[in-house]
Amino acid sequence: MTAAPSSRPARRGRPGYDLESLLQVAVMLFNERGYDGTSMEDLSRKLGITKSAIYHHVPSKQELLRLATNRALDTLSTVATEAHSTSGPAIDRLEHLIHRSVTVLIDQLPFVTLLLRIRGNTPVERAALTRRRHIDHLVTELVTQAAQDGDLRPDIDPATTSRLLFGMINSLVEWYRPRRGTNPDQIADAVTTIALHGIRNS
Amino acid sequence: MTAAPSSRPARRGRPGYDLESLLQVAVMLFNERGYDGTSMEDLSRKLGITKSAIYHHVPSKQELLRLATNRALDTLSTVATEAHSTSGPAIDRLEHLIHRSVTVLIDQLPFVTLLLRIRGNTPVERAALTRRRHIDHLVTELVTQAAQDGDLRPDIDPATTSRLLFGMINSLVEWYRPRRGTNPDQIADAVTTIALHGIRNS
Repeated sequence: MTAAPSSRPARRGRPGYDLESLLQVAVMLFNERGYDGTSMEDLSRKLGITKSAIYHHVPSKQELLRLATNRALDTLSTVATEAHSTSGPAIDRLEHLIHRSVTVLIDQLPFVTLLLRIRGNTPVERAALTRRRHIDHLVTELVTQAAQDGDLRPDIDPATTSRLLFGMINSLVEWYRPRRGTNPDQIADAVTTIALHGIRNS
Repeated sequence: MTAAPSSRPARRGRPGYDLESLLQVAVMLFNERGYDGTSMEDLSRKLGITKSAIYHHVPSKQELLRLATNRALDTLSTVATEAHSTSGPAIDRLEHLIHRSVTVLIDQLPFVTLLLRIRGNTPVERAALTRRRHIDHLVTELVTQAAQDGDLRPDIDPATTSRLLFGMINSLVEWYRPRRGTNPDQIADAVTTIALHGIRNS
């Protein structure tokens, strides 16, 4: 998803956007300029449609943020809940969770980027942070279970471990850019290998 | 460093701030509200001194940002340059670099937090990003050397490896909070162990 040049004329005569494409453009703008720094005016200019055409789809900027963050949270929550509730050794479920988290993050890169930049300034943001904390809690429980099974190094506590793992995974939003020839599965393999076995060739 | 309640009265009659304590408060505010979202007016209110008292020390908000980001960059640059230029196996120097980066980050937490949130909207920010890229380049060269020595897993490319490692390290600014009883060296040990050997007890 690349930004249209700002000199591009309004798309007069084109059929209107549907909610999905409107959301995609809104998320891109929020990521570029910050949520607080983006007005509905900016969005209408970027889309080349009137503000009332936007309000036909959503009642407010907050609602766009809610839809966007819930998109990311719904998927991440499904992945974490599955890893938490299925059977099998916790270490294997943790490995699967790490791998899936990377592919989901890449698949929904703009949405997860927006989610991870939220600081809790509004009720919508605070609701998103509450859902994030619930997901973090599921992950920490899984790490704790793997530690109790004796499958993790005993010298690192589970809360620190899960924060460091997801710090590594979430850093992808800062530097990963989709390119032809790069395969999300290869990145997911790299992250999973480093997380489980480290970088050292031993 | 905690924020004073906003209802706190101006510190009338107190001796003025020196540049160092002014900088500390500015960095705290920038991190709380964003650099763009903080005015010199906000800063003067927080400090309880007039804006002209601030301008006695620094000519502009940009200059405060420049001083703050350079504080973090000078230290990180010294650590990376040392690791890059000293003798000994690259893998050992990389291990030392990871450990030192964590302790430096914790020691200068507000300054590194500010640095890592910069997006390049102003000349000062772009200069900081250029210095960051130079440091990243030194790290990637060190990882490349360790890979050429055969000390890293051959299946992960050096650029991805260094981004993931520093993604994990830099995530500390999002979740690490200094507390009595937590020792920066223990966190640095945990990060270094996970980076080199992974979380799995093998």
